Amino acid sequence: MTAFDQIMAHQRQTEALGKVMERLGWDQETMMPEGAADQRGAEMAALEGVLHARRTDPRLGEWLAVAQAPDGPGARALDLIARSYARNVKVPADLAQKLAQVTSTAQGIWAAARAADDVAAFLPTLTEVIALRREEAACLAAGGDLYDALIDDYEPDSKAADLAAMFARMRPRLVALRAAVLDAPAPEPLTGHFPQAGQLALSRKMAEVFGYDFTRGRIDLAVHPFSSGGGDDSRITTRVAENDPFNCLYSTIHELGHSCYELAIDPAYNFTPLGHGVSMGVHESQSRIYENQIGRGAAFCEFLFGQMRAQFGEMNLKTARDFSRAVNRVHAGFIRTESDEVQYNLHIMMHFDLERALISGDLTSRDLESAWNDRFLRDFGVAVPRPSLGMLQDVHWSAGLFGYFPTYTLGNVYAGCLNAAMRRDLPNLDDHLARGDTAPATGWLRGKLQRHGGLRGAADTIEQACGFAPTEAPLLEYLEAKFTDLYAL
Amino acid sequence: MTAFDQIMAHQRQTEALGKVMERLGWDQETMMPEGAADQRGAEMAALEGVLHARRTDPRLGEWLAVAQAPDGPGARALDLIARSYARNVKVPADLAQKLAQVTSTAQGIWAAARAADDVAAFLPTLTEVIALRREEAACLAAGGDLYDALIDDYEPDSKAADLAAMFARMRPRLVALRAAVLDAPAPEPLTGHFPQAGQLALSRKMAEVFGYDFTRGRIDLAVHPFSSGGGDDSRITTRVAENDPFNCLYSTIHELGHSCYELAIDPAYNFTPLGHGVSMGVHESQSRIYENQIGRGAAFCEFLFGQMRAQFGEMNLKTARDFSRAVNRVHAGFIRTESDEVQYNLHIMMHFDLERALISGDLTSRDLESAWNDRFLRDFGVAVPRPSLGMLQDVHWSAGLFGYFPTYTLGNVYAGCLNAAMRRDLPNLDDHLARGDTAPATGWLRGKLQRHGGLRGAADTIEQACGFAPTEAPLLEYLEAKFTDLYAL
Repeated sequence: MTAFDQIMAHQRQTEALGKVMERLGWDQETMMPEGAADQRGAEMAALEGVLHARRTDPRLGEWLAVAQAPDGPGARALDLIARSYARNVKVPADLAQKLAQVTSTAQGIWAAARAADDVAAFLPTLTEVIALRREEAACLAAGGDLYDALIDDYEPDSKAADLAAMFARMRPRLVALRAAVLDAPAPEPLTGHFPQAGQLALSRKMAEVFGYDFTRGRIDLAVHPFSSGGGDDSRITTRVAENDPFNCLYSTIHELGHSCYELAIDPAYNFTPLGHGVSMGVHESQSRIYENQIGRGAAFCEFLFGQMRAQFGEMNLKTARDFSRAVNRVHAGFIRTESDEVQYNLHIMMHFDLERALISGDLTSRDLESAWNDRFLRDFGVAVPRPSLGMLQDVHWSAGLFGYFPTYTLGNVYAGCLNAAMRRDLPNLDDHLARGDTAPATGWLRGKLQRHGGLRGAADTIEQACGFAPTEAPLLEYLEAKFTDLYAL
Repeated sequence: MTAFDQIMAHQRQTEALGKVMERLGWDQETMMPEGAADQRGAEMAALEGVLHARRTDPRLGEWLAVAQAPDGPGARALDLIARSYARNVKVPADLAQKLAQVTSTAQGIWAAARAADDVAAFLPTLTEVIALRREEAACLAAGGDLYDALIDDYEPDSKAADLAAMFARMRPRLVALRAAVLDAPAPEPLTGHFPQAGQLALSRKMAEVFGYDFTRGRIDLAVHPFSSGGGDDSRITTRVAENDPFNCLYSTIHELGHSCYELAIDPAYNFTPLGHGVSMGVHESQSRIYENQIGRGAAFCEFLFGQMRAQFGEMNLKTARDFSRAVNRVHAGFIRTESDEVQYNLHIMMHFDLERALISGDLTSRDLESAWNDRFLRDFGVAVPRPSLGMLQDVHWSAGLFGYFPTYTLGNVYAGCLNAAMRRDLPNLDDHLARGDTAPATGWLRGKLQRHGGLRGAADTIEQACGFAPTEAPLLEYLEAKFTDLYAL
């Protein structure tokens, strides 16, 4: 066996064990009896130990030093494995272990603190998580920017300064759009009671409509919807609030975007680093374009309006147009995950600035609450009434996921580019979507982007699909056109 | 850390990864989308590789050479780890890998051959599996009996000669009982349609009645019922045939026996070799006593009769006595798993003799079909009409599980002993069971046996619980008394 073959064989086993870890995570959130939580923690820690040992295996270093890749996908795979190895050996094993352990218990402490609206109960843990991630970032950055080193785990090659510059360009137009929309008369919301069984039936229907392969996936309920796994086993979850069917429907469509991406990747890449979505931002572009540019578009809303009436009977909303306005309703609110297309990215910009300051050391965890509340008042014009609606709202920081938030907006930006290119290539797309025929759209995404998995870098993946380098412009134009129409601005 | 502490820390991780493997197996049979089968095979093979490496880790050998255990459970744990290590290092890695690979594909080939009633399609595979297991047994036996070496995987310390002697003592009385029962008028069977939802509701009720802890377990559907896992996560599965509710009910109660055993083990033993049922025979004693001595007893049938009427309304059986006779109906049939308490052990004796001859070399796989059919005609008085009702009926041999079958009868024998001792200690037990109160019975089993897990050897576990050394006599007396009454012999 050549060194390259040794590396790929080693990687194959590591990838297989990584899939096991994803399946354990899925089970934990969907099927696991509640009393098994501690035991599951021990199981996952043992498996994480195995994975860490494989990823930092000195033999891998020896093989990498001499390996020669064939041209094509093999070269890219080798590059990704080499990057991952270089990253992992920079972090001392005891620091990696400590981080895993602290962030695992931190999530429980955060959940209790949020439930009790008690910042003080979370502060010592948050302080420790930040300190550990800064220590890790220092190992990784080798004198460079700490936050950039952390972004690299989620969005390789992205730099904080570039993201900040892009956010600065987006901000004024989003603020102006938000102000105009909130000044206009609010559309009538959907009201009523929508039984769980009907919502789940519609959820399943959405999966069929978006071409989800049920022989390689399934839908279950979870508290927080997520997608999990790839290759031939990519599952999604959704949730049901009986007074708000859009929660279930659009959670489902969002997760379908993630899962269909994974299932569409060239099977030849399975068990290699190319067999996954290339970055969090590109992954989010798929969930967002399914959810927003397709799922919340006027054409698809026409189809969905009919589906809703068939499932639940007459609603308070009598026309597809009113239905579409309700689906896209912009409302004041404190919670990022509940916000709309207009305001979502403003939430992210705030999260980004605050966490960047936490990692650089310009902001301490002790001052985070007041910094959050000041900024929220400035950006959104309302005072945060309690920390569960403020700095305690997201799980990410307790899980140590600093550097993750900006990938959400990057996903939206990429979705904006893909939507513009797709509509350029498919001028009659809305005729199909209005009939619930997503095949031209999902086929375009599969062929142009999804099947390539991790073959190319994130920006290159988008550029190859669109035929132009990604910028924020298409997203902003899309949002301005859409909400100008919906709110008759 | 002392060598003993090193060993226990190493074992803890191995046990945790073993639990992960059980969870993957559960998912495969209950939740996994069908298209994920190959991928799951690769995942399990990767994890099996990790487990095998841990179990044969040379460091383990070095620690074992010098380790000193404290008195008590630690000494037993050390002994079990030492035995497992000694066993595993005797088998060359390439043989272990070959066996894992061949038996994994053999199960699919067997299933197809059974579906097609095609012995020839299975023979080459069966021949290979037997050859590999004989090769493995030769590594393990060091000149001793090959079949004994294989039994040791399932029932440590049991010897084929002792089992054969016990079976020879049991045989005449079982044959006589079978003849008398089949000569007597057959009871009226239960007939009708019993919808799945009602059967699953009763299944859940049975779990409650037997004290199953739903915070540490769950019930799902599977093609072949099984229980899976231990510690704080032990799940069961059941199946539904809408014309035969006893299939679902008694599958559930059987698996509850296995699962309640695991959940009752002293939590201090979790993640050690003491944290499992001690042997297949003792495990089966728990499933059998729940299913048969308790669940199919006249007293519990009284309770169940009421539950069935409450769930399904009037039945063709009008009295608890008729219901109990239908539950315990003895019928001619070819399939071991569908047979009754009277004939079950006769099936096992035949399986045992045939597989012992296959492993010793006295019987070749080519001659197995005629040997099976001759023996079945002699033992059961009817000719096997096709191999799916004969030598192709069980998955075990394709999975390489030679030496497993006798543990089923050993389980019945142990259940007979436990039942006698339990009724000696709890003279009013039936009054409780007739009301659906199993607490005295399950409490007795938990306290006397289940909580000890693997603390003692199998026979010792039964003797400590019963106060006498296990023999086949109590089982035979129980069966003769029960069926003499039910069939008015």
